[in-house]
Amino acid sequence: MNPSPAAAAVEPGASRDDLADRFAAVRSRTLALAAPLSAEDQCVQSMPEASPTKWHLAHTSWFFEAVVLGPHAKGYEPFEPRWNHLFNSYYESFGPRHPRPQRGLLTRPLLTSVHRYRAHVEAGVEHLIRTADDATWDAAQKLLELGVQHEQQHQELILTDVLHALSCNPLLPAYEPVDAPALRLAGSTPAMEWITGPGGPVRIGHPGEGFAFDNETPRHTTWLQPFRIADRLVTCGEYADFIADGGYRTASLWLSDGWATVQSQQWQAPIYWLAPGDPRAPSAQWQVFGLDGVRPLDPEAPVCHLSFYEAAAYAEWAGARLPTEAEWEAAYELTGMRQLTGHAWQWTRSSYDPYPGYHPWAGAVAEYNGKFMVGQMVLRGGSSATAPGHARRSYRNFFPPAARWQFSGLRLARDGAC
Amino acid sequence: MNPSPAAAAVEPGASRDDLADRFAAVRSRTLALAAPLSAEDQCVQSMPEASPTKWHLAHTSWFFEAVVLGPHAKGYEPFEPRWNHLFNSYYESFGPRHPRPQRGLLTRPLLTSVHRYRAHVEAGVEHLIRTADDATWDAAQKLLELGVQHEQQHQELILTDVLHALSCNPLLPAYEPVDAPALRLAGSTPAMEWITGPGGPVRIGHPGEGFAFDNETPRHTTWLQPFRIADRLVTCGEYADFIADGGYRTASLWLSDGWATVQSQQWQAPIYWLAPGDPRAPSAQWQVFGLDGVRPLDPEAPVCHLSFYEAAAYAEWAGARLPTEAEWEAAYELTGMRQLTGHAWQWTRSSYDPYPGYHPWAGAVAEYNGKFMVGQMVLRGGSSATAPGHARRSYRNFFPPAARWQFSGLRLARDGAC
Amino acid sequence: MNPSPAAAAVEPGASRDDLADRFAAVRSRTLALAAPLSAEDQCVQSMPEASPTKWHLAHTSWFFEAVVLGPHAKGYEPFEPRWNHLFNSYYESFGPRHPRPQRGLLTRPLLTSVHRYRAHVEAGVEHLIRTADDATWDAAQKLLELGVQHEQQHQELILTDVLHALSCNPLLPAYEPVDAPALRLAGSTPAMEWITGPGGPVRIGHPGEGFAFDNETPRHTTWLQPFRIADRLVTCGEYADFIADGGYRTASLWLSDGWATVQSQQWQAPIYWLAPGDPRAPSAQWQVFGLDGVRPLDPEAPVCHLSFYEAAAYAEWAGARLPTEAEWEAAYELTGMRQLTGHAWQWTRSSYDPYPGYHPWAGAVAEYNGKFMVGQMVLRGGSSATAPGHARRSYRNFFPPAARWQFSGLRLARDGAC
Amino acid sequence: MNPSPAAAAVEPGASRDDLADRFAAVRSRTLALAAPLSAEDQCVQSMPEASPTKWHLAHTSWFFEAVVLGPHAKGYEPFEPRWNHLFNSYYESFGPRHPRPQRGLLTRPLLTSVHRYRAHVEAGVEHLIRTADDATWDAAQKLLELGVQHEQQHQELILTDVLHALSCNPLLPAYEPVDAPALRLAGSTPAMEWITGPGGPVRIGHPGEGFAFDNETPRHTTWLQPFRIADRLVTCGEYADFIADGGYRTASLWLSDGWATVQSQQWQAPIYWLAPGDPRAPSAQWQVFGLDGVRPLDPEAPVCHLSFYEAAAYAEWAGARLPTEAEWEAAYELTGMRQLTGHAWQWTRSSYDPYPGYHPWAGAVAEYNGKFMVGQMVLRGGSSATAPGHARRSYRNFFPPAARWQFSGLRLARDGAC
Repeated sequence: MNPSPAAAAVEPGASRDDLADRFAAVRSRTLALAAPLSAEDQCVQSMPEASPTKWHLAHTSWFFEAVVLGPHAKGYEPFEPRWNHLFNSYYESFGPRHPRPQRGLLTRPLLTSVHRYRAHVEAGVEHLIRTADDATWDAAQKLLELGVQHEQQHQELILTDVLHALSCNPLLPAYEPVDAPALRLAGSTPAMEWITGPGGPVRIGHPGEGFAFDNETPRHTTWLQPFRIADRLVTCGEYADFIADGGYRTASLWLSDGWATVQSQQWQAPIYWLAPGDPRAPSAQWQVFGLDGVRPLDPEAPVCHLSFYEAAAYAEWAGARLPTEAEWEAAYELTGMRQLTGHAWQWTRSSYDPYPGYHPWAGAVAEYNGKFMVGQMVLRGGSSATAPGHARRSYRNFFPPAARWQFSGLRLARDGAC
Repeated sequence: MNPSPAAAAVEPGASRDDLADRFAAVRSRTLALAAPLSAEDQCVQSMPEASPTKWHLAHTSWFFEAVVLGPHAKGYEPFEPRWNHLFNSYYESFGPRHPRPQRGLLTRPLLTSVHRYRAHVEAGVEHLIRTADDATWDAAQKLLELGVQHEQQHQELILTDVLHALSCNPLLPAYEPVDAPALRLAGSTPAMEWITGPGGPVRIGHPGEGFAFDNETPRHTTWLQPFRIADRLVTCGEYADFIADGGYRTASLWLSDGWATVQSQQWQAPIYWLAPGDPRAPSAQWQVFGLDGVRPLDPEAPVCHLSFYEAAAYAEWAGARLPTEAEWEAAYELTGMRQLTGHAWQWTRSSYDPYPGYHPWAGAVAEYNGKFMVGQMVLRGGSSATAPGHARRSYRNFFPPAARWQFSGLRLARDGAC
Repeated sequence: MNPSPAAAAVEPGASRDDLADRFAAVRSRTLALAAPLSAEDQCVQSMPEASPTKWHLAHTSWFFEAVVLGPHAKGYEPFEPRWNHLFNSYYESFGPRHPRPQRGLLTRPLLTSVHRYRAHVEAGVEHLIRTADDATWDAAQKLLELGVQHEQQHQELILTDVLHALSCNPLLPAYEPVDAPALRLAGSTPAMEWITGPGGPVRIGHPGEGFAFDNETPRHTTWLQPFRIADRLVTCGEYADFIADGGYRTASLWLSDGWATVQSQQWQAPIYWLAPGDPRAPSAQWQVFGLDGVRPLDPEAPVCHLSFYEAAAYAEWAGARLPTEAEWEAAYELTGMRQLTGHAWQWTRSSYDPYPGYHPWAGAVAEYNGKFMVGQMVLRGGSSATAPGHARRSYRNFFPPAARWQFSGLRLARDGAC
Repeated sequence: MNPSPAAAAVEPGASRDDLADRFAAVRSRTLALAAPLSAEDQCVQSMPEASPTKWHLAHTSWFFEAVVLGPHAKGYEPFEPRWNHLFNSYYESFGPRHPRPQRGLLTRPLLTSVHRYRAHVEAGVEHLIRTADDATWDAAQKLLELGVQHEQQHQELILTDVLHALSCNPLLPAYEPVDAPALRLAGSTPAMEWITGPGGPVRIGHPGEGFAFDNETPRHTTWLQPFRIADRLVTCGEYADFIADGGYRTASLWLSDGWATVQSQQWQAPIYWLAPGDPRAPSAQWQVFGLDGVRPLDPEAPVCHLSFYEAAAYAEWAGARLPTEAEWEAAYELTGMRQLTGHAWQWTRSSYDPYPGYHPWAGAVAEYNGKFMVGQMVLRGGSSATAPGHARRSYRNFFPPAARWQFSGLRLARDGAC
């Protein structure tokens, strides 16, 4: 039997009011994330893999319209049927789509029209929540929950994509000047501690309470060899040592595809690092561009915005390796683990393959996760840009190994019998 | 002796007041052309060859700053020195530049900041006009005239580029709903008449009064064989006959590079034509997308937005050829010639080679025209999008033979001894 | 401790004579495989991923020279030091290399010179085997074994690459007219039987006797869920049903990257299938191009030359999935399994990740396998083109998911609790 | 009336015997040019613009078969009809063709088969010459002459293409070790002399006696301004001064497209020059790779294998310009002109546009020249690789401006009124 979102999608006992409140809060937070940006900032697409903020605003609304309101809300009138073509991301079952690399060309609809679209969809959803009969609610509730989770995912993408777009501007404008201290461990970075994980059978995957994506299921047994895992993330200072030691010039540290990318793309440091003397913001020191603009490199902050290739090369240089996703999940509750979430997604040494017994959700949302299960690597944890409360122990994030623009860092691991 | 803009740049007797008036009028017209567009519309770049409206607004200001104010206006303070890098188009002598294909990523400076930049430059120019001593004025005047002409060129580019950008949007939004009738001959299109041009020596090139670009000089003798030239442009209706007759499927009509482009780009009609049944604006008839949105094809209007390849293939199909630029210029004053300007630029069968004795202007503006004299074809005439008063008989416009997004059509010619 | 080839490289008790015999036999077989090909055939490279036969002949000799003779054979004189640059494949530690996509431009050295190179290296190896002192032999023996295994791998690549090259010729010439019957089950294809594999802990990886590559080690425990696996490979006839049912036009069957490839590459059938009416070899039936030329499709033969994307789409269409590599290895000794090897490599649903505890061999041969452990999928089994005796139960072959030119087919699997 | 090859194709009074003799001599010379090359050398294609020697051998035979024998030789049996597809170069009227970039994949037919093809065609042509009735001969004779001229053109291409292919091999093998001195002026290079050409009307184009290609016709009047032209070609020594003076690093010397190419292709010297220290053939001096292998740069030899961009940049650096093709043709008989032919093709400042009144030949050979008249520059003169007797004063060679692999150099010119 194929699972449906029903199987895992809802907190038991979640009331209509609860969901209505969370829906409203998430929708509102999305707009707040866009607020520091001008209409021009929200329209731009800096590479095919990234999307404009305005597109994210519209797509997350389209998702509710196509997946929830269309099938379940009687009498709902789509805001503008021609927009299906524009704001469908990758759902083949909903028909042809505007080419992804051309999302930045959509100066129309205007941002103000997209705001009206959002309000229209929100009214539709709120009406559905209030008025649906029980059978309808039973079917719609799980998809609504998925829509909320989906929008949280796009909240992080808004930040990753806008950071990339701003980084392409030689003026290096800040998303928002921020006074808050960068994320780091209190005080100075302590020495890295190795935590031991025992071997043998472990259970991984979503245990069944609360929402989870289909790719986290089914919960199943896997077998681990004994391992050790670092209690904290690798820092910028440690990564700077790797660079200073010639890390980007030493082929033997890199996977073959990674080394080819280093050479063809002329990588010399993480994507948002500015080397001393960079003409865009002259300084004698390394600096880092982020949402708060150009700042001096903080040697104690977790290194971020790495590709898998860079993470794996660093680990090799450090005489270690990346943890597998099963190790990471097993280590989640070991004593002494820090920075598990809220700092940076952590590349694992696991390809994004289906779990044994995995089946995609039924219906249109079958395309949500399963069709991407090739050519990508799993990241675990959650970053400073992840929506509050969104990630969890069993959460499987995934990106191609060359992707650098996510909030992605690393934690080291080693074989137990070292 | 190399000519300088001095040699040809100014109307004799043009007073400071005259130039100040024209400067103000041109600057104002540029903003008026941008006015129907939102900030988003003005930021987008739809292909490497096109530029955002906002960039045109800023670049034409940078040109005055770099070429006129910097060298000649004492005490002028640049608005923002870091913008030189952003808004220099192709002048190697002014240093490195933001990559052309990434102009659309410049969400900052904001449009409102570019408006302030324009005002700052305008104040500087007006101050220079009022206060320059005679020697300074003598040197600056010609460059100021060049800046005005340059901005007029970009006025047309604003329209060509925004039309292309809007055409990439499946919603096919109009630049501006327009009620004015499309450009055409009064009443119905008369039969094409052939006007005879005699052979022998003719003088072509700018005769020396008023402004001209360096590429129109020196005026010189060339020799023509007797020829015939059409009194009017080819119409959309005539071009539709070419399509219906299989023009885009008949290799023998095309130059080799043109046929390769037809196949690789899958050309089947002019770039802005919508075939019957196009899902973006369903209709049983051919339609044409333009600045005023989607309109039914007007069979009597001049065909526009053709590449040289398409123009040459049409002429071959029609048993004719394109005129050379010397024929076009010689025909300019023949009795009976119509639609010489104000409708569509007219592709000629002449490559954009230098005139005998040609020398670029001296100084930075040497890069204005000369360095592009390879790989391009000459267009003559002027289009409906050309700034009023900008073009003239000796004017040489030029684009690569595959370029389709300009306001470019064609006029037929034939050998005299046919 | 990092394993060295020593750990696993040699059959216990293999005498010098045994290895000398096997060396001679393998070298001789390589030449025999090339024998049906002209010097022109042996020089051509049809795509960057493929190599010319002549290059394979030289590279396998370079490998012995660089890895075995250089370090271990006193007094050995390289045949031509400048050829290191030409025939090093991907070993960064041996210095810069001729660009892979340009191997087909190496008309020199001539094939006859490469034959002399082979003889020179063979004399060197034979001399080493006869004369090495015991310490030298102890070190060299394992690398020599690796060289023999390496050459066997290239024997299969000679056939895959030459088949691709010949397929690019519209004349579709045969590598060698062959009268032998195609590989298939005796008589007609029996119905597919499902063999049940039990869940729980299993041991996979090389058990330690005889040669194995580093990527097969260490042997370790993994945990399986109960599964079922097909007793035989999918046939051409079954695959033809998939095509007839619109398999290549149904997005929902494909992984996202696979569907993008189908569309951009216009895949409509396996790479070497000729649709009815193909102008290269007109027929009313499906035909297949192979080493023996164009033959009518044999519906009972195993389907071959599929990409992972095609294999996975077929499995989805068939209501099944691909086995994981652990399932495949566990199923190897189940009763009733057929066509395990000698027919076609079998794509698994496992990404090519390192085994827990994996370490590459020490020294230059560390680059042999480990650096490719990203972006590839594992194949198991062995094909009709695999050198006799080369593959084994724990053997891990790997290719990118879009690769079609290998002798690669598929076997179906299903979850046990279906 | 369209001209046919009849109009210009034949020497008046050329007898059947004469043409038979010339046919045999040209065919024989082609094979002699290929003789130093192995079968592998003759199969390789080093870039899409170049063709394998074997392909040239076959294509020149196909041309006789398709253009002469097919239409005019009763009872002629094509050698192998399937080869039409392989060896048609670009004649759309003869049907679809093997893709040009894949000519190097044609390992079959074998070289020996192509030799048989040549013999078969030669027998057919010889039979036609001997046995054709007068009407047939009248029609065939002109096409036969064209076939001979066509094969001479391919003789030069064999040398240009094989030189490029050999240059891609890091071993830099010689086509043929040659002891003959390089082409140069006797003794040391004399100072360049400027020869004055008068202005006014001149007649250019083929005057009508003997063979000419359609693109040299019709002979017509053009008008020249007074000019000066160098009596000899630019030498390697002079070009080395340009390099030493930073020519490849000075944007202002280059056309815009040329400078973009210099940067994207990292040009630093002519394509076949080896800078001091080049690892392929270490030396402290500049060296040049040619058909006779690597030789020290001869400062007095004409510089060769330049692109138009490089020729134009050199001329700019030298305070001169390239001559137009009309100037070159007018200067042909001025007293004192040297190195007009037999050394290097000479880039002109003329785009390859049709002459006034130009019409392609009738029939299939209409595609011979006319369809390439866009995007190319004219070269005049003839090189050391041009077939003896092939070029003439009115001869128009043409290549794209970035093409470097031809035997192309330059001669300087200046305006007369300097």
